Amino acid sequence: MLENLKTRVYRANTELVRSGLVIHTWGNASARDRETGMIVIKPSGVDYNRMKAGDMVVLDPDGNIIEGEYKPSTDALTHLYLYKKWDFINGIVHTHSTYATSWAHAGRGIPAFGTTHADHFYGEVPCTRRLTEEETENDYEINTGKVIAERFSDLDPLAVPSVLVNCHGPFSWGPDAEEAVYNAIALEEIARMAFYTVLLGNIRPVDDYLLKKHYERKHGKNAYYGQKGEGQEEEGPL
Amino acid sequence: MLENLKTRVYRANTELVRSGLVIHTWGNASARDRETGMIVIKPSGVDYNRMKAGDMVVLDPDGNIIEGEYKPSTDALTHLYLYKKWDFINGIVHTHSTYATSWAHAGRGIPAFGTTHADHFYGEVPCTRRLTEEETENDYEINTGKVIAERFSDLDPLAVPSVLVNCHGPFSWGPDAEEAVYNAIALEEIARMAFYTVLLGNIRPVDDYLLKKHYERKHGKNAYYGQKGEGQEEEGPL
Amino acid sequence: MLENLKTRVYRANTELVRSGLVIHTWGNASARDRETGMIVIKPSGVDYNRMKAGDMVVLDPDGNIIEGEYKPSTDALTHLYLYKKWDFINGIVHTHSTYATSWAHAGRGIPAFGTTHADHFYGEVPCTRRLTEEETENDYEINTGKVIAERFSDLDPLAVPSVLVNCHGPFSWGPDAEEAVYNAIALEEIARMAFYTVLLGNIRPVDDYLLKKHYERKHGKNAYYGQKGEGQEEEGPL
Amino acid sequence: MLENLKTRVYRANTELVRSGLVIHTWGNASARDRETGMIVIKPSGVDYNRMKAGDMVVLDPDGNIIEGEYKPSTDALTHLYLYKKWDFINGIVHTHSTYATSWAHAGRGIPAFGTTHADHFYGEVPCTRRLTEEETENDYEINTGKVIAERFSDLDPLAVPSVLVNCHGPFSWGPDAEEAVYNAIALEEIARMAFYTVLLGNIRPVDDYLLKKHYERKHGKNAYYGQKGEGQEEEGPL
Repeated sequence: MLENLKTRVYRANTELVRSGLVIHTWGNASARDRETGMIVIKPSGVDYNRMKAGDMVVLDPDGNIIEGEYKPSTDALTHLYLYKKWDFINGIVHTHSTYATSWAHAGRGIPAFGTTHADHFYGEVPCTRRLTEEETENDYEINTGKVIAERFSDLDPLAVPSVLVNCHGPFSWGPDAEEAVYNAIALEEIARMAFYTVLLGNIRPVDDYLLKKHYERKHGKNAYYGQKGEGQEEEGPL
Repeated sequence: MLENLKTRVYRANTELVRSGLVIHTWGNASARDRETGMIVIKPSGVDYNRMKAGDMVVLDPDGNIIEGEYKPSTDALTHLYLYKKWDFINGIVHTHSTYATSWAHAGRGIPAFGTTHADHFYGEVPCTRRLTEEETENDYEINTGKVIAERFSDLDPLAVPSVLVNCHGPFSWGPDAEEAVYNAIALEEIARMAFYTVLLGNIRPVDDYLLKKHYERKHGKNAYYGQKGEGQEEEGPL
Repeated sequence: MLENLKTRVYRANTELVRSGLVIHTWGNASARDRETGMIVIKPSGVDYNRMKAGDMVVLDPDGNIIEGEYKPSTDALTHLYLYKKWDFINGIVHTHSTYATSWAHAGRGIPAFGTTHADHFYGEVPCTRRLTEEETENDYEINTGKVIAERFSDLDPLAVPSVLVNCHGPFSWGPDAEEAVYNAIALEEIARMAFYTVLLGNIRPVDDYLLKKHYERKHGKNAYYGQKGEGQEEEGPL
Repeated sequence: MLENLKTRVYRANTELVRSGLVIHTWGNASARDRETGMIVIKPSGVDYNRMKAGDMVVLDPDGNIIEGEYKPSTDALTHLYLYKKWDFINGIVHTHSTYATSWAHAGRGIPAFGTTHADHFYGEVPCTRRLTEEETENDYEINTGKVIAERFSDLDPLAVPSVLVNCHGPFSWGPDAEEAVYNAIALEEIARMAFYTVLLGNIRPVDDYLLKKHYERKHGKNAYYGQKGEGQEEEGPL
């Protein structure tokens, strides 16, 4: 079942390696089938070089394995929590990409310093609070989803499609797996630029009107970047 | 029309990706045809892997689409403004290359710290002022061209063939698209070196006489670098 | 003899180059045959491009050459010391990988800042003390093994399978050569992240309960990462 | 003439590009023929992708072109000066490699922080003084050679086979072109490590006895690294 989506999720996972965001087995991508609500996700700890599209695991929204020879990614429950919470996203990516993870280690959100950031994230990429001991020891993966959702209580997950989990690393998402991967790659690059910017002594973010201008060139009803008609969002270029 | 120039502009754009200056669709290169004054530029938001030479867009100097199936790069009006202002340049490149963009985020020009810089830029690579809210909200792309030209009011664009647009990123140019790409690559490397130099605690630029010596080894009537006769500029090595 | 193990050790060595941990001939990997106790190790100073599996050197536990046309790695005596001391490890890797070596230069252990670290190292990756003049001049390679063992007098070498030798560089180990290589790659990445984290101004390590949670997701009797049954350690993905 | 040496010098030049030390045409390698004293050097400003072994230029020790269709590297007179001064070296490499050049920009020698450095350089890699205006304007390339030799007045060029020219970049050398390339690659890596080490807050160099131990493991009459007999220097691994 869902052979096409399995292939897309498989490709999304290998794209993470190809783009330098993932070494070893340190990442996972998933997608939700819009029709059935089923989630397709990478198996846990399987070597990317041997992994095939058919190895992807199919889960129902409650995490029951519907199809697949392997156990799903250890982080599957975090993915499932976010899919339930935000019905408008259908792709999620988790990595330990170097620069984004370093910001997460420092417990700092990534300030919007320029237009590269503004083109993809409408404001700071936020960092969650640390989990408590209780939240860590019981239902850790679900609680990771909860602190992400908590951090977005007054933020729009489609306008800022990434988060840093404190002392852990980034999650990115989007309307499908391809855009989630696209956003994960964009996140790592703006994390890298922001790191250099801070070392150059700058702490003043981009002006609000420039942030708005660039975000709206690419997103929303007045977007004029790319080849779609006015007001249609551009698809990710994967 | 302009099939040869389309191929050259196509190659200039793909060279930006190959050189690591551009990820996703974050860059654009254009060229002006010396005879007709027409501008050939990359289409907006098209995936580099699918893009063909025939996808390049032909514009007249006022920005009317003369030929092409696609909309031109969103930054086309900035290119057009600079071509009108500076009739001696016929190639322009815009990227969000990591180190140059980080200097732009910090709002700082790149000091000339050594001979690598002096070989290509006769002095600091300047950073523009921030655009005002008014300049950002109306005719943003044209105003981007204007603040660049304003910053060069007392500078020679051929002696310093790059600029950092504040909170945005670099533009580079040259006599043709190939040299603009060459300069964009040189800019990113000197931005990277200058970043490390500053972190090592140095803020003293190269002596003026060494700056002059190296610039004039490669440029102007007494140049003796490369294979051309005395006083002939070397072409870019693309 | 030990043809299969020679091939595995040869591959482990070339994997170090492929992963960017080793340039020139600056690294070595070895393995111990569980049955015979013999050690297979890379020859000293041989170009990776010309090296073949058959060039690996077989040593007995006291360092006598049992088979091989070449002299063994100069660091062989350090490997042998650790194999004798810790009979539960059967693979060792030494590199001069950039970030881990820079921490060793600074004489600082690598703090556990996040879950990427916790997934692989149960606490700080320690740095040894400097060797004395006497220890350096006589039996240098054996004494290098001794300061490593000394540093681990109250640490579990399987829970923290890497060390930084002061002013020198990292050693990593594991149940076999493949896991030692896996750990060396993980070490370099967490060394890089920790370097960026420190530059971002953070000095607070991950909470103990999160360190424990992540370590135990992958290791020990309650591990649930990967495809093995409960309580079985995952093998390295090489 | 000297077809074999031309091929070796050609390969040495392309190895600089392959190793990431040179972009564009920013580097040059040369070698001296031990029998005739002739110098073979890269032509000036020729694209590496089009360059052939036959394009190498043959010079006599005074810089007269003995064979070749092209003008020699602009830095040829610096090479010639060093060959005359030091008759025991027969290969020279000049690059603008990123980290070594950044140290040169900062006007600082590279301290010996660890064994990676000690394995190749017996002490700090020194930085020359800045050239005066007079030295820059007249006979610049010869004067570059002179400040290098001046800096080595109390140093052994074979024990420390590299230098940083202030505000310019590194030169490396050796018994032949292959070892000069080997040293240039080693230099860039130790420059990178030393940069990270300094950012980690360390300014204390390696102990003299460890510097000596590691240098003498690889060099001199008691060397025991590599496959040569006792007291024979190892050849570079190119």
